[in-house]
Amino acid sequence: NLPLVFMAGTCVIESEKHYLDTAKKLKAILAKTKHPFILKASFDKANRTSVDAYRGPGLAKGLEILTKAKALTGLPLVVDVHEPWQAEEVAQVADILQIPAFLCRQTDLVLACADTGRAVNVKKGQFLAPGAMEQVIKKIESRGNHKILLTERGASFGYGDLVVDMRSLEIMKQFGYPVIFDATHSVQKPGALGCATGGNRQLAPVLAKAATALGIAGVFFEAHPDPDHALSDGPNSLNLEMTAQMVRQLCAIDQVVKKFK
Amino acid sequence: NLPLVFMAGTCVIESEKHYLDTAKKLKAILAKTKHPFILKASFDKANRTSVDAYRGPGLAKGLEILTKAKALTGLPLVVDVHEPWQAEEVAQVADILQIPAFLCRQTDLVLACADTGRAVNVKKGQFLAPGAMEQVIKKIESRGNHKILLTERGASFGYGDLVVDMRSLEIMKQFGYPVIFDATHSVQKPGALGCATGGNRQLAPVLAKAATALGIAGVFFEAHPDPDHALSDGPNSLNLEMTAQMVRQLCAIDQVVKKFK
Amino acid sequence: NLPLVFMAGTCVIESEKHYLDTAKKLKAILAKTKHPFILKASFDKANRTSVDAYRGPGLAKGLEILTKAKALTGLPLVVDVHEPWQAEEVAQVADILQIPAFLCRQTDLVLACADTGRAVNVKKGQFLAPGAMEQVIKKIESRGNHKILLTERGASFGYGDLVVDMRSLEIMKQFGYPVIFDATHSVQKPGALGCATGGNRQLAPVLAKAATALGIAGVFFEAHPDPDHALSDGPNSLNLEMTAQMVRQLCAIDQVVKKFK
Amino acid sequence: NLPLVFMAGTCVIESEKHYLDTAKKLKAILAKTKHPFILKASFDKANRTSVDAYRGPGLAKGLEILTKAKALTGLPLVVDVHEPWQAEEVAQVADILQIPAFLCRQTDLVLACADTGRAVNVKKGQFLAPGAMEQVIKKIESRGNHKILLTERGASFGYGDLVVDMRSLEIMKQFGYPVIFDATHSVQKPGALGCATGGNRQLAPVLAKAATALGIAGVFFEAHPDPDHALSDGPNSLNLEMTAQMVRQLCAIDQVVKKFK
Repeated sequence: NLPLVFMAGTCVIESEKHYLDTAKKLKAILAKTKHPFILKASFDKANRTSVDAYRGPGLAKGLEILTKAKALTGLPLVVDVHEPWQAEEVAQVADILQIPAFLCRQTDLVLACADTGRAVNVKKGQFLAPGAMEQVIKKIESRGNHKILLTERGASFGYGDLVVDMRSLEIMKQFGYPVIFDATHSVQKPGALGCATGGNRQLAPVLAKAATALGIAGVFFEAHPDPDHALSDGPNSLNLEMTAQMVRQLCAIDQVVKKFK
Repeated sequence: NLPLVFMAGTCVIESEKHYLDTAKKLKAILAKTKHPFILKASFDKANRTSVDAYRGPGLAKGLEILTKAKALTGLPLVVDVHEPWQAEEVAQVADILQIPAFLCRQTDLVLACADTGRAVNVKKGQFLAPGAMEQVIKKIESRGNHKILLTERGASFGYGDLVVDMRSLEIMKQFGYPVIFDATHSVQKPGALGCATGGNRQLAPVLAKAATALGIAGVFFEAHPDPDHALSDGPNSLNLEMTAQMVRQLCAIDQVVKKFK
Repeated sequence: NLPLVFMAGTCVIESEKHYLDTAKKLKAILAKTKHPFILKASFDKANRTSVDAYRGPGLAKGLEILTKAKALTGLPLVVDVHEPWQAEEVAQVADILQIPAFLCRQTDLVLACADTGRAVNVKKGQFLAPGAMEQVIKKIESRGNHKILLTERGASFGYGDLVVDMRSLEIMKQFGYPVIFDATHSVQKPGALGCATGGNRQLAPVLAKAATALGIAGVFFEAHPDPDHALSDGPNSLNLEMTAQMVRQLCAIDQVVKKFK
Repeated sequence: NLPLVFMAGTCVIESEKHYLDTAKKLKAILAKTKHPFILKASFDKANRTSVDAYRGPGLAKGLEILTKAKALTGLPLVVDVHEPWQAEEVAQVADILQIPAFLCRQTDLVLACADTGRAVNVKKGQFLAPGAMEQVIKKIESRGNHKILLTERGASFGYGDLVVDMRSLEIMKQFGYPVIFDATHSVQKPGALGCATGGNRQLAPVLAKAATALGIAGVFFEAHPDPDHALSDGPNSLNLEMTAQMVRQLCAIDQVVKKFK
């Protein structure tokens, strides 16, 4: 029953300056809550809808920027990994390796992350029941790594829509590892823009409040100083004002529900 | 931003004595919260899975028992109606007429309830998007009745399962009428027992906490002194101990979130 | 393994003249296939999305028109019923009473239809697993009526969309009663037009071909001489040219698959 | 409107002898249909539910076996690929590279396959609308490769179940590339066995008949001489007797529907 942790950052590193500036702004906002804050970063968006979409600075340049971000802010980092060979390199700078939802069943990727000894945050696939995460956990544990986090980010609900099943958070809690709710990917509308993923950022704080009321370990979200011009996932990213309001409200809820016996 | 209202009762009237006893027990539990309490009753379960299942005392005997319950407890009543001709009779004793989810699109039933002048609580069909409730509202408003409540009770999610989409509560709030969350029907497993509906009562308080965190008007649930021997909907009914704990927790959450600007 | 039966007609009776004219045209088209044809009629659309939508001529006038249609065409009739008290009256003229999908769980309606002794065609609810139809069948059989037909018309698939699960036809066949595929309601887009149901009529023959390949008893569809100006369900109704092509193709498929051992 | 193509093989290479024996048996069965047959092989199942499950002989040994299978049978091969670096090697022996459904959005894998110049068969993700495959096609076309096949293998339908939306086959046909229906993965029950995927092989021929009635390019399926003892995907694999009956029936349907104008 530790205080709610926040994991946040831009969807993708747009540039060194943009990323570091945003990291500082988020740190300032989050500092007011006195809750732990883990900075989120992606050096490559490997599954963009369109082949023409911006993917990020790539691994080498990305890790360089992340090293600076860590030095500048003093924050721990959560970074996503898409292929097994990247795990070791990313683990040099990341505190938590994150496995994207589409890839949560790729055994080699899961094992490569586990082998680094870093904490591994697995996003539950949109196609997966919460109970099925048990087998993913066993894959990580099979390498002697017990630093595991499980993230809910919505389940397929017909075409072009996701639904968050709040039962999932409770069911995953039974595995004994921290459960995180990803508030902004959960409000994506996959394929809604034809050549890009749509979304509804107004609903992200709504779902985050609901999830927080269950007494979870943390909330993940993407934020951007100007989401309508973000290079990725703009429609579902929070702006900084929404961020400030949301985290304040979530902390208030968290404080109440963590007292429940 | 009024305090959370509770609507609760047994799924069906099992007998006069059983119903009145349970009503008194629920009143005592709810009284500790100082939140408003509306007693729920069903005189007939018109859509049981099996033709052999107990349906209730019927309209005439049912209304007699409800009249006694009202006199005994002083509580307002919410009662479900299944055919248009029942509306007027039920409105003699019920404060709120409730339209079952499967029937939310039956125009004649909706209009008959509206015509009584009583408040009408419409349960959103498991097959309906929250935005589609606008047309149901217009049906009621077309008769000059603006005492409308909207209830979320889960959406079809594959076969034999329901998922609660918390976005639905927020979307329905935009219509300007009180939004209720039905915690126990939402955890039904339709058809899971072959000749009866299954369910998981442990998850009802979980979903209720999530819903309450959105700042809704009320929570509906079915409770029973001995749910494993209830004549209807036992698997998803709360026992009295769970009821006491849940309402206490929901009030705590409600108090926090209703302060949010 | 009898030849495929067709059930078709306009969604609702728009006027006596329109209905009788269309019935004659459909009869002429269907006659070329030499397959049995059952004329479909609705005197009242009791669950229109909007309170302002056209509902039909009503029971008394509707039955009068249906009596004329029967005399004029010599075709058997399938007619939907929405409340128990209507069953007996509709059974005076209809050969098959049809229970709408939303209402397939309403025990009193099912029993009232069963009691007429007429054949009863139950549309499987959009919220129901095919296996769950066993309990509906038992309700009808409990009245000594074994003239039962089961119709698939799509299952809820997220919001505003239906998916046809072809497994459902095979699973329902196991109950030993004729299984019908409703090709045009299956391509509805519930609520897609805001105040009305949308649909995609181009996909109706596609799904009908798939269903027919399973060796089913019949195909149901709505057709209209001018679907873009139909008073109900226009977006998913076939025009007469599409009808002619579709039934020709379905008969060809039916002939092949009914020979399979 | 070329004759239906079959793609079939065991789920995974269990051993050299087992694979070659089964390939010969399948070739003999398929030869009777005179329809084209492409042999399916997997050297590694990279996304097994359990970390303890058998994965296959691996890339090097697998390609060796596939080379022998090709020499022995003279059949073209379709082989799945899971990471970008494998594409070039697999293309040495495979005629078609296949992208697993979970990985259909991984841009680097799609591009690596496209770059080999081989035909690329993309399985549509269980989380993807058929229209969204347009963007995947554009990724492949961006490398000048227009040898593309699209495969339907079911969509997420609640938890632990897949539904095949037959509309998907028709919608994907509009892209102008051959559309394949994967009959056996479509009847998987993901996670149904706890530590393994369940399935219902009896329904695979049912869905295959429905799909074939739409006039598609091919049907993919997994077959095994003894599916109850298969090392992977046994519950949804066909035995050889079912295979013989199914392909005979599908050819009969294909012949009829490919004549439709």
